[in-house]
Amino acid sequence: MARPTDVTARRSRRARGRRSGGQSSRSAILTAARARFARHGYEATTIRAIAADVGVDPSLIMQFYGNKDGLFAAVLDQLADVSKAILASLTGPQRDLGARLTRTYLELWERPDTGDTLRSLVRAALGSPSATATFQTYLTGRLTASDLPVPKRLGYVLAVSHLFGTAVGRYIVHAPALTKLPLDELVRLISPAVDTYLKMNE
Amino acid sequence: MARPTDVTARRSRRARGRRSGGQSSRSAILTAARARFARHGYEATTIRAIAADVGVDPSLIMQFYGNKDGLFAAVLDQLADVSKAILASLTGPQRDLGARLTRTYLELWERPDTGDTLRSLVRAALGSPSATATFQTYLTGRLTASDLPVPKRLGYVLAVSHLFGTAVGRYIVHAPALTKLPLDELVRLISPAVDTYLKMNE
Repeated sequence: MARPTDVTARRSRRARGRRSGGQSSRSAILTAARARFARHGYEATTIRAIAADVGVDPSLIMQFYGNKDGLFAAVLDQLADVSKAILASLTGPQRDLGARLTRTYLELWERPDTGDTLRSLVRAALGSPSATATFQTYLTGRLTASDLPVPKRLGYVLAVSHLFGTAVGRYIVHAPALTKLPLDELVRLISPAVDTYLKMNE
Repeated sequence: MARPTDVTARRSRRARGRRSGGQSSRSAILTAARARFARHGYEATTIRAIAADVGVDPSLIMQFYGNKDGLFAAVLDQLADVSKAILASLTGPQRDLGARLTRTYLELWERPDTGDTLRSLVRAALGSPSATATFQTYLTGRLTASDLPVPKRLGYVLAVSHLFGTAVGRYIVHAPALTKLPLDELVRLISPAVDTYLKMNE
């Protein structure tokens, strides 16, 4: 049976070993990038600082992602789970469509993990013109992807814009009128408009 | 009669004289600060750079505004005209209330001058946690100011949150589904929800 120090040493070796593998380096770089973009915003985040956080050479990040915009786009791809949850909420009975999307969207902001991701990415994406361009390209790609079960594009964009504005007010600006509402009450109040947009004729 | 060179020299003296006056220095500093916050975002903007733009010593800016947060709050105060237009739209016949607020709000984003100001300030305000805190304090102050003719606070915040989300989609993210709509059509589509929020019982 290995002594504790051996176990520690082996773990340490394993950690170093994983760090040098391509896939786990990518993962570590993305995690560090998300944290940096979250804390410091897009402009103040540098590839050099992220490289230092991870313990790799900046050239490795350039090799993987090209530049800061490429890295930011890769960070946004971590929102795939968020997209999946939103798209899943759009299937099922039409009757509850607005309430289902509203609750799913706001619950993603309420959850500590996805909430922090959304908060930091919105900050980063709106904080600078070039990051916004990347964000727009990403969103456009998502919205025109062929697997999107969204028959009414304008209605979907109106619904999500409304939900986004509400989320900024409650989870970023922390407007007291919004933060003091229980989630159920907020869902009840804005679901009707969201439902109307999702079902509108274009 | 003064020769041209004398006029030039006098103008130059006058310009320098005005720059050293408290009020015109403040005005020049605010103009430069708004441009910097707009182009580079909150984090990347420094008091030193703004001082260089204006041709004053950084200590003068510190003396006027304390720190970068204080300066940013002062820049936000330039939105007084925007607030006035929005508040004016809330007076008048109840019947058209939602359409009037919606049109006024979106037209402020359409206008080159106020549109650029709103765009840059939203970028700066959401781009960094500390700027968001300043923005929140400012908004809270505005929303609780005693001269606000807004009887239903929650309804007003829901309406403005919805409008804000739509504005971000159309004027910052440039979502194609929103940008291709004529303004009148967009006003027609979202006025009903805005109207409902403004008139809701709390």
